[in-house]
Amino acid sequence: MDTFYVMEPTVYRARLDNVRAEMKKRGIGLFLAGPSSNLFYLTGCALGGDERLFLLALPAEGEPFVLANTLYRDQVPPVGEPALWKDGEDPFALLRREVEKRNWPAARIALEAQTPALFSLPLAGQFPRSSFVLGSPLTDSLRLRKDPQELERIRRASRAADQALAALIGKGGYWLGKTETQFRDALVAELGAAGVKAWEPIVAAGANGSVPHYMTGQSPIEAGKGFLVDFGGRLEGYNTDCTRTFHFGKPGAEFEKVYNTVLEAHLSAEAAARPGNVLGDVDHAARSVIEKAGYGPYFTHRTGHGLGIDTHEGPSAAPGETTPITPGMVFSIEPGIYLSGRLGVRIENLVAIGPEGPEPLHRFPRDLMIIE
Amino acid sequence: MDTFYVMEPTVYRARLDNVRAEMKKRGIGLFLAGPSSNLFYLTGCALGGDERLFLLALPAEGEPFVLANTLYRDQVPPVGEPALWKDGEDPFALLRREVEKRNWPAARIALEAQTPALFSLPLAGQFPRSSFVLGSPLTDSLRLRKDPQELERIRRASRAADQALAALIGKGGYWLGKTETQFRDALVAELGAAGVKAWEPIVAAGANGSVPHYMTGQSPIEAGKGFLVDFGGRLEGYNTDCTRTFHFGKPGAEFEKVYNTVLEAHLSAEAAARPGNVLGDVDHAARSVIEKAGYGPYFTHRTGHGLGIDTHEGPSAAPGETTPITPGMVFSIEPGIYLSGRLGVRIENLVAIGPEGPEPLHRFPRDLMIIE
Repeated sequence: MDTFYVMEPTVYRARLDNVRAEMKKRGIGLFLAGPSSNLFYLTGCALGGDERLFLLALPAEGEPFVLANTLYRDQVPPVGEPALWKDGEDPFALLRREVEKRNWPAARIALEAQTPALFSLPLAGQFPRSSFVLGSPLTDSLRLRKDPQELERIRRASRAADQALAALIGKGGYWLGKTETQFRDALVAELGAAGVKAWEPIVAAGANGSVPHYMTGQSPIEAGKGFLVDFGGRLEGYNTDCTRTFHFGKPGAEFEKVYNTVLEAHLSAEAAARPGNVLGDVDHAARSVIEKAGYGPYFTHRTGHGLGIDTHEGPSAAPGETTPITPGMVFSIEPGIYLSGRLGVRIENLVAIGPEGPEPLHRFPRDLMIIE
Repeated sequence: MDTFYVMEPTVYRARLDNVRAEMKKRGIGLFLAGPSSNLFYLTGCALGGDERLFLLALPAEGEPFVLANTLYRDQVPPVGEPALWKDGEDPFALLRREVEKRNWPAARIALEAQTPALFSLPLAGQFPRSSFVLGSPLTDSLRLRKDPQELERIRRASRAADQALAALIGKGGYWLGKTETQFRDALVAELGAAGVKAWEPIVAAGANGSVPHYMTGQSPIEAGKGFLVDFGGRLEGYNTDCTRTFHFGKPGAEFEKVYNTVLEAHLSAEAAARPGNVLGDVDHAARSVIEKAGYGPYFTHRTGHGLGIDTHEGPSAAPGETTPITPGMVFSIEPGIYLSGRLGVRIENLVAIGPEGPEPLHRFPRDLMIIE
């Protein structure tokens, strides 16, 4: 079964125990987690969510259980004795009965952050005297520090990403006249062949690069213009995320100036990504380079974000962020400058924090590559 | 921009007005909808959700607005004047201020069903005197009836799915010894080439077919065994969904009996899918065939589900479902029999309901195909 156990069973038991310790500290009696990266982290269950209630009910004390539709009987992770329900039955009432049967304290219930209103509203209806809080604090601090097995997966995914990009960019002028979508499809296929399940890449030709979260379309790749690729995906449950900006043919002075500013900001942020600093220092290092060059208003987002099972994990390398940088953290460094309707440049690497400082997880060159 | 306007602007205006009429009927002052199929339905905005609050605030009366991070400035659908927030600011407080400024009644606020707890809990904190209800009743009854433009997209997606499956199955014995994953990747590529963005197909070799929502793995495709493929994807925002079960080499008596029972159940359900009946009749038609053959306990799910922008939309063809079948509805008919650890058979078509009865949207043959 591919559904769970990417890690050894003991890893999951230790993670569940860590969450329970955190629950006790915070006076939370029950944590409810449906299909999500947290459920994957805690049980190895990679099931996608749908309209049928499926969740791990984890008490601060006592044996947890998984509530699932009988349809998923064979895909329930081996955590306690499952509580199964059939189409036509009320899974919310079943959950309440199971919780009451066990006499679990439920004055404060934590909900996994991705729990949709489709479930959270009926759950609130079943536990009218409970207060509901976000479950993120129970898991975020644990997931922030990657263990060596996790790190190895992110490293391999990142290496595969580098190679996929190199294979495509190696075709050089072949791409002229092709569309963003064609490049995207080739990139997704190349990643897939390496075992990386790609998320939707951003492939932005020319001025489209000035939209930070552009949705890849039918624009042609043209000479004399920039070309931004932000891509990644999952390998055995763990992500990679990388951005490079290229130029087809000789760039103008403005593009070069913007590119070099972003590169300097990127390298400056990387140098600041070391134990002893806080995440805000990484942002400050990038931002001050860009501000000094006069592009401050055109760097419209944070410098980076944590990454692991999710592409975006907390905490961010953002202004004022006070989380200390510690070994085991993995986050992106991705400053950018966006001149609306003209050009956009972003350079993104993942770094893993070691005791001595940052290990860049991508080896694809960061200097401006001109493609003829 | 690919982000919105799959339909004419007037289509979206009419849909928003229909939702507002429903809000007034139900005493709902405000509907909040983040990235979701409902946001796509109402505005054409196909943005995926992330950790930054992005939502349409639709009042029962007055000009709606979209609240978005400045990062998505160029991707805000053209509905009213956007309320923009920057990283570091509190978007929940901004929403409250914008609602108060407009004096919108907010005693009852409807949340789009996919709103994650990450947003719904802080929203509840900003509006402590409001009661929150699910927004689904505001949109479900509208989305249930597909208009001709929507129907045409589902029809085209379904035709493309038929052709993709035919192209692969046409290779016959070529697949023997290949893995489920190899078949899946080829199917996804074939669909992609036809413009259909595939969701993760279920490709289940042999006994894996007995897990209704099996996750495709590395099992080999072997002679003398069944082979189940449940697949689909989106074309211009609209879905298709189809399942066929094949047999490599001559099937045994049990497989043939199960297959013929499922086929008879499928055809019987299709015949019941006509105006005048209710959705429960479709389920009953399939279920009674399977029960009569003695396989009742092994048909563990509903007979079908609505489909459109989402792969699963309400209401279901399930036991006791009293929704009348009316022209414009599109739903799946997919009875199955699952003998755990031995074999599984499911046959799924989409049907569009016309004034005269069902139009099957798939033309791929339903008779048992033996692949040598």
